[in-house]
Amino acid sequence: MIEAKATEGPSREPTIREGELVYLSLSDGKSFLLRMQRDTVFSTHQGTVAHNHMIGATWGAAVLSSSNKILYALRPRGVDHMMKLRRETNIMYPKDVFYLLAEMDLRPGDRVVELGSGSGSMTQALARAVSPGGLVFSYDLRPEFSELAQMNCRRAGISNVEFRLREAEQAIEPDVDAVFTDVPEPWRELSAIRAALRGSGRYAAGLPTYNQAEKLAVALERHGFGRIECVELLHRRILTREGKTRPEQRMVAHTMLLLSAVKLGAASEPDEG
Amino acid sequence: MIEAKATEGPSREPTIREGELVYLSLSDGKSFLLRMQRDTVFSTHQGTVAHNHMIGATWGAAVLSSSNKILYALRPRGVDHMMKLRRETNIMYPKDVFYLLAEMDLRPGDRVVELGSGSGSMTQALARAVSPGGLVFSYDLRPEFSELAQMNCRRAGISNVEFRLREAEQAIEPDVDAVFTDVPEPWRELSAIRAALRGSGRYAAGLPTYNQAEKLAVALERHGFGRIECVELLHRRILTREGKTRPEQRMVAHTMLLLSAVKLGAASEPDEG
Amino acid sequence: MIEAKATEGPSREPTIREGELVYLSLSDGKSFLLRMQRDTVFSTHQGTVAHNHMIGATWGAAVLSSSNKILYALRPRGVDHMMKLRRETNIMYPKDVFYLLAEMDLRPGDRVVELGSGSGSMTQALARAVSPGGLVFSYDLRPEFSELAQMNCRRAGISNVEFRLREAEQAIEPDVDAVFTDVPEPWRELSAIRAALRGSGRYAAGLPTYNQAEKLAVALERHGFGRIECVELLHRRILTREGKTRPEQRMVAHTMLLLSAVKLGAASEPDEG
Amino acid sequence: MIEAKATEGPSREPTIREGELVYLSLSDGKSFLLRMQRDTVFSTHQGTVAHNHMIGATWGAAVLSSSNKILYALRPRGVDHMMKLRRETNIMYPKDVFYLLAEMDLRPGDRVVELGSGSGSMTQALARAVSPGGLVFSYDLRPEFSELAQMNCRRAGISNVEFRLREAEQAIEPDVDAVFTDVPEPWRELSAIRAALRGSGRYAAGLPTYNQAEKLAVALERHGFGRIECVELLHRRILTREGKTRPEQRMVAHTMLLLSAVKLGAASEPDEG
Repeated sequence: MIEAKATEGPSREPTIREGELVYLSLSDGKSFLLRMQRDTVFSTHQGTVAHNHMIGATWGAAVLSSSNKILYALRPRGVDHMMKLRRETNIMYPKDVFYLLAEMDLRPGDRVVELGSGSGSMTQALARAVSPGGLVFSYDLRPEFSELAQMNCRRAGISNVEFRLREAEQAIEPDVDAVFTDVPEPWRELSAIRAALRGSGRYAAGLPTYNQAEKLAVALERHGFGRIECVELLHRRILTREGKTRPEQRMVAHTMLLLSAVKLGAASEPDEG
Repeated sequence: MIEAKATEGPSREPTIREGELVYLSLSDGKSFLLRMQRDTVFSTHQGTVAHNHMIGATWGAAVLSSSNKILYALRPRGVDHMMKLRRETNIMYPKDVFYLLAEMDLRPGDRVVELGSGSGSMTQALARAVSPGGLVFSYDLRPEFSELAQMNCRRAGISNVEFRLREAEQAIEPDVDAVFTDVPEPWRELSAIRAALRGSGRYAAGLPTYNQAEKLAVALERHGFGRIECVELLHRRILTREGKTRPEQRMVAHTMLLLSAVKLGAASEPDEG
Repeated sequence: MIEAKATEGPSREPTIREGELVYLSLSDGKSFLLRMQRDTVFSTHQGTVAHNHMIGATWGAAVLSSSNKILYALRPRGVDHMMKLRRETNIMYPKDVFYLLAEMDLRPGDRVVELGSGSGSMTQALARAVSPGGLVFSYDLRPEFSELAQMNCRRAGISNVEFRLREAEQAIEPDVDAVFTDVPEPWRELSAIRAALRGSGRYAAGLPTYNQAEKLAVALERHGFGRIECVELLHRRILTREGKTRPEQRMVAHTMLLLSAVKLGAASEPDEG
Repeated sequence: MIEAKATEGPSREPTIREGELVYLSLSDGKSFLLRMQRDTVFSTHQGTVAHNHMIGATWGAAVLSSSNKILYALRPRGVDHMMKLRRETNIMYPKDVFYLLAEMDLRPGDRVVELGSGSGSMTQALARAVSPGGLVFSYDLRPEFSELAQMNCRRAGISNVEFRLREAEQAIEPDVDAVFTDVPEPWRELSAIRAALRGSGRYAAGLPTYNQAEKLAVALERHGFGRIECVELLHRRILTREGKTRPEQRMVAHTMLLLSAVKLGAASEPDEG
């Protein structure tokens, strides 16, 4: 289960409780993810602030630091957890993650496989998308990554994930609604993926190079997948200043190529009806 | 509740049942959304196909048309419903919709307001995102749009939406977790929106012009919102052909500017702690 | 020589003369390239206009059509010639052409080789860039393209081009300042190109796919070229309307990948000085 | 006149001569612009190199540094001069500069006005484009910029520019073929610009914000300009590595909005023929 939220009736403002994570936002754009603990003081470059000042306040509350700076105690979003996690792999950006979730059409109750736990960023997004009632099977061949992903998910309050170790091309959990891969040679996994997917099940992948994208797309067609699409999403920030609106001068120009496909039935079988 | 899915145990392949919607996919990329009905025949430019041939088949099944073409009976995804609905307004593209959902951080059980029901495309996405247990309050000032959105949601099997008529600047449902607006002058609504949002609640908007984006961003700051961001997402399709991979020659270059912000607490209050 | 322009002193407005080309611009954005001929009438979907009304007028003159529409008689630019020529190949877009000219650093008096005359669009741009005093050697292996390019250049008033037929990998004109290729397998030409280029001479190419770009870049390094760069230019039109400024909804997303490089001296030789 | 080039016959390789500028290119992508002077030694982070080793060598020659690194003595291109100049203003990028030159359709012999000398980067490009025989009139209201631009042009060997000081809205050199502005409020200059331009003369501008672009476009229409276009060019570098081709991860996302227009004749006059 992911963390409960809004269990109070609609008429009472929820407040910050001990043990919860707070996204502390500073005026200069910097931010921190803190777990509330009584009698603890947090130090920033804009002064210190006591956790006691935040516990019991309504979410979003402004708190004054010791240097008289206003900080805001925000409720962390899923994307905040993802951007703040301890990582030893490339990050997956929210723009890509949520596009892929939509392509995979995940819903509460779904069973989904992830090949490549990485640092657990996509794992979290998958786990939230199938909650409540759904389950993520997250595989990696490197124990140290599997453990890091596990730790990051625990910290974000996510528990509907089974982490497993697996060699390339081994069989995976069967009867799943969708599979996501973040591995360098996903074309080697397509037989295992096809065997695991339910009919009309969705496959999605992120890949850094055009060569890999081409190789995967060609292999997908050979393995009986359809609606094969490859896209890139460019995320461009606009600076909205009164009378001086313009795009930011620098941007991330490349993260991942995003592939998606659907498992088709065998062409010979179903005509008998 | 949205349509049940995968209620069978993990070991039995779900099959297509009468009354369900099927996404019929043709080899030329064309597709249709059909509700299964016994003894009905569907005509396409690639021949006819009997619904009886699809009912009882596993999802993803290949069916032969009367012209010997292979068609695939796929399970419709949320994005397929959104792209196929009857519309009289501009469409919201999945790339934008799912980015905004992530910015709003919607979760099962959340209460969310939509200003501007439009054709009900975003309404569907919001409803799925807060399911199960959550509720969408979708407002429009034009009865004909409210009814169209209602009809499109019903067709997609979505029932956790309350459609309401409302004049600009009127009060909206209180104690909500997030508000989304798709109206031309959202800055007029910020007082009502701020009053309705819980602490740390999220606001998101889609707007076509830079002028509107600037005006909204400036107004958001004055109304006590923070983390104000404006972005555009460019979605570029890559043609992955063996030895001939390149971007598509044409693309949609502009849909909406995407704004998001969080409701901050009043700067004076919470310091007493 | 390219067409003379502005031979009058700075104090007299040049006028439209018989035999010159006029770029006739209509209010709906349509346009035509016409050679002025006395007693001729031109028909458009906005009415007819007599050439006699334009001959003798100053450039830019507004003329009334028979349907009382205002048309403008503009001086054609180089890019207008390029976009209006009769073509049987893909067009090269001005954004790409002028970027490549800058990369090649062409100047009046330069000698430049083009492999792939195509329809003569880039040929024109090269010819203008080395004028006066320079020369283009434009090769193609298909006589019909060579003739089409020749015809299009003649029509645009360009005469400093030598058109030649040539098989792939044959030797080309030596002692040239730059080489441009618009052929599908330019890596086969690099020995011939290197032999033809002067020291520090520039090479540029346009290619449609990532596979070709990669193959060419790798080959360039092996053939002793340096400063190898591959870029794509995206050209996005902004609709500037009072209070309603936004990008156009559709754009050309892909034309060519643009490569450029410089011929380096052999690494062993020049240290003796 | 710009620097002579290629005065030798086609059969003799030109060599590097004392007094010429050399673009010294290092293996790590760094580069320097050096004027050749006998008995001078240049120090880099890859060792020292004697000018005497370059003087007399063919262009493009490889020279060994004292640390046994290979450096290349390349002929500087126009764009190299532009990117290397001493600047106190924002740089204009070659992608934008050459697009605007094409829009202005500059040719040898043309007379062109620049409002805003800046650091002289665009000035150089204009001067090269109208050479031989043409002239640039470059205005600025700040003497320090006018002098910096002058110094940078002199260093690049450019002499066909007249630098002038001028207050906003003052009259400018008449009977010019084109005008370029890089000033914050170009709409104030349109009366002066229209008066200076010949019939069908071209105007182009670079501007950082959407607000300025909109204001200028609206004003251009009121001042009798046509074919008004506003575009942005995005320049994206592709890393072409064998089997690993992908876009660079970061890019410049915004430099300038590029406007262009043509002076139309008065709508009432020319119909008499």
